[in-house]
Amino acid sequence: MRKFIFSLVLAILATTIHADNPKYIFLFIGDGMSSPQRNLTESFLRKTKKEDLLINQFPYKASTRTSAANAVITDSAAAGTAIACGEKTNNGRIGMAPDGKTKLESVAYVAQKAGKKVGIITSVTINHATPAAFYAHRPSRGQYYEIGLDLINSNFDYFGGGGVDKPEDKKSAEFKGNIYELAKQAGYTVTSTPEEFAKLNKDSGKVYARGSNGALPYELDKQDGLKLADFVAKGIELLDNPDGFFMMCEGGAIDWMCHGNDATTTIFEVIAFNDAVKVAYEFAQKHPQETLIVVTGDHETGGLTLGFANTAYEAHLDKLLLQTKSSGVFNSMVRQLLKDKEDFTFEDVKPAFTELFGLQFNGPADDIMTVTPAELKTLQDAFDAQYPKEKDKKANRDALKFAGLKVFNAKVGVAWATFGHSALPVITTAYGNSAQLFQGDYENTYISQTIKKLLVK
Amino acid sequence: MRKFIFSLVLAILATTIHADNPKYIFLFIGDGMSSPQRNLTESFLRKTKKEDLLINQFPYKASTRTSAANAVITDSAAAGTAIACGEKTNNGRIGMAPDGKTKLESVAYVAQKAGKKVGIITSVTINHATPAAFYAHRPSRGQYYEIGLDLINSNFDYFGGGGVDKPEDKKSAEFKGNIYELAKQAGYTVTSTPEEFAKLNKDSGKVYARGSNGALPYELDKQDGLKLADFVAKGIELLDNPDGFFMMCEGGAIDWMCHGNDATTTIFEVIAFNDAVKVAYEFAQKHPQETLIVVTGDHETGGLTLGFANTAYEAHLDKLLLQTKSSGVFNSMVRQLLKDKEDFTFEDVKPAFTELFGLQFNGPADDIMTVTPAELKTLQDAFDAQYPKEKDKKANRDALKFAGLKVFNAKVGVAWATFGHSALPVITTAYGNSAQLFQGDYENTYISQTIKKLLVK
Repeated sequence: MRKFIFSLVLAILATTIHADNPKYIFLFIGDGMSSPQRNLTESFLRKTKKEDLLINQFPYKASTRTSAANAVITDSAAAGTAIACGEKTNNGRIGMAPDGKTKLESVAYVAQKAGKKVGIITSVTINHATPAAFYAHRPSRGQYYEIGLDLINSNFDYFGGGGVDKPEDKKSAEFKGNIYELAKQAGYTVTSTPEEFAKLNKDSGKVYARGSNGALPYELDKQDGLKLADFVAKGIELLDNPDGFFMMCEGGAIDWMCHGNDATTTIFEVIAFNDAVKVAYEFAQKHPQETLIVVTGDHETGGLTLGFANTAYEAHLDKLLLQTKSSGVFNSMVRQLLKDKEDFTFEDVKPAFTELFGLQFNGPADDIMTVTPAELKTLQDAFDAQYPKEKDKKANRDALKFAGLKVFNAKVGVAWATFGHSALPVITTAYGNSAQLFQGDYENTYISQTIKKLLVK
Repeated sequence: MRKFIFSLVLAILATTIHADNPKYIFLFIGDGMSSPQRNLTESFLRKTKKEDLLINQFPYKASTRTSAANAVITDSAAAGTAIACGEKTNNGRIGMAPDGKTKLESVAYVAQKAGKKVGIITSVTINHATPAAFYAHRPSRGQYYEIGLDLINSNFDYFGGGGVDKPEDKKSAEFKGNIYELAKQAGYTVTSTPEEFAKLNKDSGKVYARGSNGALPYELDKQDGLKLADFVAKGIELLDNPDGFFMMCEGGAIDWMCHGNDATTTIFEVIAFNDAVKVAYEFAQKHPQETLIVVTGDHETGGLTLGFANTAYEAHLDKLLLQTKSSGVFNSMVRQLLKDKEDFTFEDVKPAFTELFGLQFNGPADDIMTVTPAELKTLQDAFDAQYPKEKDKKANRDALKFAGLKVFNAKVGVAWATFGHSALPVITTAYGNSAQLFQGDYENTYISQTIKKLLVK
């Protein structure tokens, strides 16, 4: 009897779902973001701000497998293509099957055909693998210029976020001019300043709004300037129409900072991504029956772990706030310290560790930020590696930065297993109309396969 | 309308669920097992045997948070207590509130009160934190002898798996004799050999069947002897009765090998755990309406990652089979090699790396198991650390073993971030009657809170 009722209910639900498919569909992708990144950021927010992480609060949740067609560990091209097009492909391919010839159709094109407006947003470059998978078809993710041409040919309504990588690559066999100029010629309103951005409105036609010529600055380094959330808010403003829209928004810099094993900068990128989701969530409160929000990642990066043997069961997540800028600025801080010095020693670079990571060289022994003798040796060895005394020895130009991160991470209680991607499944969470379809345990291809079905009128 | 139907359905389901609560309840806990351990083992099985991992195939799945009352990273005592009793406590406490005085009631005692028979099984020692949380009440997990006394006092019907740690601790203020003897005096049939185990039947009364005096041997090292699955099968045989049973089975050695960063041994422990679940699953096929199986972990250990920068997107999981024994035997292999040698060098210990990990010192350069110059240096440095030339330098007696594991892991494409526990949420999967209650995203306390409700007639 129960089985019968359950089947009946599923049948009814299936009918009702089809009866009012979501009008507004948001797909958020955190690049390099799986449960460790979500979990660490949430723990940090709870500890420092008594706040939850919205993307973890959505009512439906799934584990999502990420492997590529030709490798157990995916890159962002194969993962982006799987999420965008619903088919597994080889690492490196953008919107194309493993053969590198057969084009795959992304959910964004299906949405466009269904009469919806389409927006593509990222915090890094717009012709980078993840966003590219939604509009381009190329055998190699490195074909930045050609991917830029595909962007223009997509005729999608809105592109926002980072700039174009290699916008004027004259080495391309298909070279025909600067991508930004070509976009204008194709009818796009192209903006590059916050002032121009503010003026964009429904009369602007097709839009490509960039917040930078490359990736948006890291959240931790940002003084002002447009944030990922601003691009989502603008997208909603520009795309809203009676037929609805499909919007993909990528938090791309999460991955970059996980490759760099920089926990604080990673956390602030996840927060910026979560803030962008908040904008969609607030929109959904106004259109509760019509909006679907899906939040996923393309793979895990870094083998990130909250927990480290030296700190046992403790974690000092509040200490992450001592890091005031992304680790990317460390080398320029060191250069500044060594400027005009002919003979310099490890002593001369010490202030950079204190300034960037809050490491104390003469602090009290019971202050966890005081550098221990073993940690001091790690930093000194790194100095010798970055500035070798032997003239014929190759210098490791990032040794000091990575040693500083290693010591800082260990003190805080965060650990990383790799500088590369991992095979850990990602987490998908969903909210709103049809969100229940996104619970469970599935391959990343399931996401756009399911959204495509919801786009069939 | 849809909302109404959905509410109606939930109401109907709630009624029907209550109408036929599970008669047989299995709770499996993989110690130190979260998604990385499940995922790595599954990838290994798919690669080497074209098999899936049953525990990952169950229809309902959840992310389960693990933090202790007093720490973001839990130990097995606080996690075990949370899973067993449904309340958060401090690290170290067994079946007790953070105050170390207030006793908490485990789901096993609730099952006993409800008239069900109760079984507790583990692959490690039976008075270790995880199983202890189901029958003992002690402020500290280290009170092994006193926990052993609580085991006897529980009057539970079946204990199986490992032996008792410190069974005759005369330093205990509560000392009153050998735990095994006390158990016999209390009416338990206590067995210690496979032959005695085979003879156990429904006439044996209360049973404590141990497969070893300590933990069961690691699966990878096991020649014969009883397996975790054997203890589950015996438990079903002994406990089955018209009122049903509650059985907790722990895969305890998973955690131990993750602390040791030994991927191959970990995988074989997860497979042994999965085999134990299979026995319950086969039983459930015979009692489909009456059986609930919940599989969870108490925390993640090791910050395990499938993926390593050096192997890029590749992983050579089949090479894990080159490791023929647990890394615990490495030191005795080395001692054997150095026996009767007065002056020994690194050259003398090389064969141990080849024998245990399949590392090749003179193999072809294109064979990934051939040791590279950088890896050779790692191994040589470890030799110097384990056998320092300077007489006053403290020897690191595990340096060679860990260096071997490090090189082996890197070649295979597996990485570990820590030798300790991490805060990564664990995965809970469920099958059978009421399994749908275990999907979603919850604290580890939810598991026994929910099972307790199912035990109310």
